Amino acid sequence: MADKTLTQLSEIGEFALIDVLTKDISIKNLSTVFGVGDDAAVIKAGGKKRYLISNDLLLEGVHFDMAYTPLKHLGYKSAVVNFSDMAAMNALPKQIVVGIAVSSKYTLEALKEFYAGIKKACKVYHVDFVGGDTTSSVHGLFISITVIGEAQEDEIVYRKGAKPNDLLCVTGDLGGAYMGLLLLEREKKVFQANPDMQPEFSGNDYILERQLKPEARTDIVKNLSKKNILPTAMIDISDGLASEALHIAKNSSVGITIFEEKIPIAQNTDDLAKEFGIVPSIAAINGGEDYELLFTINQNDYEKLTTIQDVSIIGYATDIAEGNRLITNDNQSIELKAQGWDALKKP
Amino acid sequence: MADKTLTQLSEIGEFALIDVLTKDISIKNLSTVFGVGDDAAVIKAGGKKRYLISNDLLLEGVHFDMAYTPLKHLGYKSAVVNFSDMAAMNALPKQIVVGIAVSSKYTLEALKEFYAGIKKACKVYHVDFVGGDTTSSVHGLFISITVIGEAQEDEIVYRKGAKPNDLLCVTGDLGGAYMGLLLLEREKKVFQANPDMQPEFSGNDYILERQLKPEARTDIVKNLSKKNILPTAMIDISDGLASEALHIAKNSSVGITIFEEKIPIAQNTDDLAKEFGIVPSIAAINGGEDYELLFTINQNDYEKLTTIQDVSIIGYATDIAEGNRLITNDNQSIELKAQGWDALKKP
Repeated sequence: MADKTLTQLSEIGEFALIDVLTKDISIKNLSTVFGVGDDAAVIKAGGKKRYLISNDLLLEGVHFDMAYTPLKHLGYKSAVVNFSDMAAMNALPKQIVVGIAVSSKYTLEALKEFYAGIKKACKVYHVDFVGGDTTSSVHGLFISITVIGEAQEDEIVYRKGAKPNDLLCVTGDLGGAYMGLLLLEREKKVFQANPDMQPEFSGNDYILERQLKPEARTDIVKNLSKKNILPTAMIDISDGLASEALHIAKNSSVGITIFEEKIPIAQNTDDLAKEFGIVPSIAAINGGEDYELLFTINQNDYEKLTTIQDVSIIGYATDIAEGNRLITNDNQSIELKAQGWDALKKP
Repeated sequence: MADKTLTQLSEIGEFALIDVLTKDISIKNLSTVFGVGDDAAVIKAGGKKRYLISNDLLLEGVHFDMAYTPLKHLGYKSAVVNFSDMAAMNALPKQIVVGIAVSSKYTLEALKEFYAGIKKACKVYHVDFVGGDTTSSVHGLFISITVIGEAQEDEIVYRKGAKPNDLLCVTGDLGGAYMGLLLLEREKKVFQANPDMQPEFSGNDYILERQLKPEARTDIVKNLSKKNILPTAMIDISDGLASEALHIAKNSSVGITIFEEKIPIAQNTDDLAKEFGIVPSIAAINGGEDYELLFTINQNDYEKLTTIQDVSIIGYATDIAEGNRLITNDNQSIELKAQGWDALKKP
């Protein structure tokens, strides 16, 4: 007999759960600048320097499927998704701490591949691997990565600073990681049904790389700094454009308007979405794991922004009363809703 | 057909695995002071201030059994074992980042209990809860806690500073957490065999608390500072006295001699060990999870040390050529070996 007074986690979403569990937390130590509620916590580091700390968990069977995930790529991605949290605060990653728990099905050689991927990411992003924990698990591989980043006090960008009329910008293109996942899932099913069949990946290198080996946009953080642009709010796209835009809207107490036609989508993503019978912009709006940056800037920075490669202006912030809207290609205004990947609501 | 060229993790221990996976890691960023190889990494924090970072994973079915672990205690313990890593560096914990992955068998109310335990530990130890990650798991509860602590540059104590003739000291008493675990396992089996039986815990409050709700010895860190004693090497006892003593010996390039008769053992631990047919000192030497501090001091600090409560001198460091020895109660000298809890060798 189920106890009716108890609340199943499936009844609430991940973000509501975090709100409930952390709502009565207060900060007491002088070194703590900012705690729960953004992409990273912030602590003082002498003078105007600040350290940023973030943690991400990746679990086999939830965040990755060993049927099609090369361990070296998994190590690289595990590190990069954490580096992306630093970029989302307009900071650069400097150290990581890697905790892993593995079941007996993994060999030493497999773990070496995984660590080779982490070390590669550390080399590419100039990050020091400084510690961690290694233990056994009963089922599968469990990864916990903590990243420490650096920024000056006045460079840190939170989710909460967007103002009405700010321009909404996104880096790179969206939806590719999601289409990569769908392709991998499809080929896995084909293989399971007939192990003699070879997977059909030709022409899809781009979206496969978006899913299996994403990059963190620390290049954009550096370019924004060079051009002297300080975003007013920023977040990285791990759960889908709509979900992240709503975080900025909520934390900044503004409305967000996005134009469907402005959303950047790669040709490969567009082609494969159509093959799957999916509207490409839906993949871009609700598909996660692109790890691009979504940020707002003051309109005065518009000219400077146009000199930075690989950034698209896709909308703007409004008064909160206008709500969150998607202006579709046929010029309808519909409510912008997050239907993206929400780990705790997944079956 | 098993591939003979692959190495099963069960063939190597946890510490050897960490050595293999991290051996070619080097540090490049100016802010990084110390990386892999101690209880925590160390980064610069302005002037002589240093931050210390450590991560511990706790997994259901490996580190705890939900059959007898109250969730509030589990939250408290998860935080405290990380605070203990800070104490092991002669530092004090200041912030924690909490990552958890939960399966659908957990309710919101259960998670609130777990977080209540973490918050309680944060309050007791004056630590700020600053962030984390919350996601779903396929099987059970996974906990990853990262702790950040503070110390002055010249206060940090590593595993590597012990010199021959230094005195070996331990706080509190040992073996209690292990006997608590054995008692809980026994009563679980009794209950499984006959669910009408009530567990028999009377008189064993002390050892149960040692297992279910340990404390970190930050009080000793403060007292050592007050008395102006800087240990030459230090570690916390998570894997058993022998295992930790060998870490100090190896990292400091010394030998360690321990006197069996000097090992502090509580009456409750002693009584229950005898009831279980275990030599009490064996429980103290090989049983883990006491989270007491093991440290060495220069002999010149002996007088000052005697003014600190709850510290026992149990041996001394020697030239490395003398090896690691246990002087038994019948005055035999035997090799000190780690037979303690090694997560990756467990069945």
